[in-house]
Amino acid sequence: METNNSKKFTQKYLLTAAECNPEREMPLTLVMSRIIEVATLHANAWGVGYSKLIEANQGWVLSRVTVEMTRYPRVNEQYSFTTWIENYNRHFSQRNMEICDKDGVVIGGVRTIWMVINYATREGVDISKLSYISNNISDRKSSVAPQGRLHMVTEATKSTSYTFKYTDCDINRHVNTVKYLELLMNQFPLEKYDKQLVRRLEIAFMHETRCGDTVEVNLNDNDGLDCKLSVDSGRLSHCRARFCFSPR
Amino acid sequence: METNNSKKFTQKYLLTAAECNPEREMPLTLVMSRIIEVATLHANAWGVGYSKLIEANQGWVLSRVTVEMTRYPRVNEQYSFTTWIENYNRHFSQRNMEICDKDGVVIGGVRTIWMVINYATREGVDISKLSYISNNISDRKSSVAPQGRLHMVTEATKSTSYTFKYTDCDINRHVNTVKYLELLMNQFPLEKYDKQLVRRLEIAFMHETRCGDTVEVNLNDNDGLDCKLSVDSGRLSHCRARFCFSPR
Repeated sequence: METNNSKKFTQKYLLTAAECNPEREMPLTLVMSRIIEVATLHANAWGVGYSKLIEANQGWVLSRVTVEMTRYPRVNEQYSFTTWIENYNRHFSQRNMEICDKDGVVIGGVRTIWMVINYATREGVDISKLSYISNNISDRKSSVAPQGRLHMVTEATKSTSYTFKYTDCDINRHVNTVKYLELLMNQFPLEKYDKQLVRRLEIAFMHETRCGDTVEVNLNDNDGLDCKLSVDSGRLSHCRARFCFSPR
Repeated sequence: METNNSKKFTQKYLLTAAECNPEREMPLTLVMSRIIEVATLHANAWGVGYSKLIEANQGWVLSRVTVEMTRYPRVNEQYSFTTWIENYNRHFSQRNMEICDKDGVVIGGVRTIWMVINYATREGVDISKLSYISNNISDRKSSVAPQGRLHMVTEATKSTSYTFKYTDCDINRHVNTVKYLELLMNQFPLEKYDKQLVRRLEIAFMHETRCGDTVEVNLNDNDGLDCKLSVDSGRLSHCRARFCFSPR
């Protein structure tokens, strides 16, 4: 049982019309933005957000995200994100989330893996001494199955070249998490999203990409309901993903 | 003097690290998102937001936006948007905004022109009978100079072809305002933004574009501090803009 409220953080939202996708629902890119936002808000609530780490020229970055949605919030609908930390080790912190509709019915779940990097060396930092993490581990589990191993797509059914632009890049001067996801989502046509929804997303951010870098986006959609993607430069993957679709 | 608080709406924000551009400031695309958001929140406060218009298969769309910023909010900084309606006629509603830092110092201003379209016919709707507008006209003026006439760029210094993708499109199934702005901003390299900021933006949305449409993005930057752009299909402009830069 949790006795400390600081272990759990909930934020409520309203899905505005301007935020919706063509299916009049919450876009998966907005789910990703909210994941980053509630993690930030939770850390801010402990007094250990951005401003604390940046003093040491460090910052949290997302390493892996797994999302499962039974349905997405619809236009003008209220929804909430609740987050807690399940586990951590020297290198990674595992943060879970639950997405509910306005009646508290669970409509989605999220598993995320975060690390702290040093902006100067671009390397991971030992987080085992961050007491605010160890003090806030929750015994609550996630209903989402852990992410499987994601492979580079070598037998692509479609390969597209893409050069990252100014608005793709963030405060770290590398490509933003949400922009990778947009690039991956844009490998499928509007018509597919009209017929199917992304029931499960697995994505791993493996190697940072800078503004102006050109990559290959490789897709294997031999199984249209279980598509694999990777964003690669030669033999190096910047990002790998799996999109599991369900008919609407 | 204003006596009715419903004529003025203020929303406070904190600029999180995940929202920042490579210059560690509020991106112009986020300014645009906030413009749409506070207008929506103000309309919701009157009880006449999205849900009211959609009953008649209608919705507000942005027609013109002019932004002037003396500086942009920086990472972890609080800022606010205040909005009011200055004027309206049968076809257009003119909504102004003021952007302040946490001490109330004005750091930017916005003029916007909105119209209501019928989603079935894609044509403008007579808004002169919407009493919630006439009841909420403010006598407060904008410090931002009105938008000048924007022309199609015919003598381009750079022309780029672009095909709109799934994540570029919104609930109306046409290209999202923010995505046009991203496309225009991406015509300039990161290095330009490191040295200069967009002091004034003028943008007009002229003709809707659909998912899968291919356009030409035309730029004239003969004057590097006063650049003109247009997003065109043949002799038709979908969007025209002017970016006035200042050295940092």
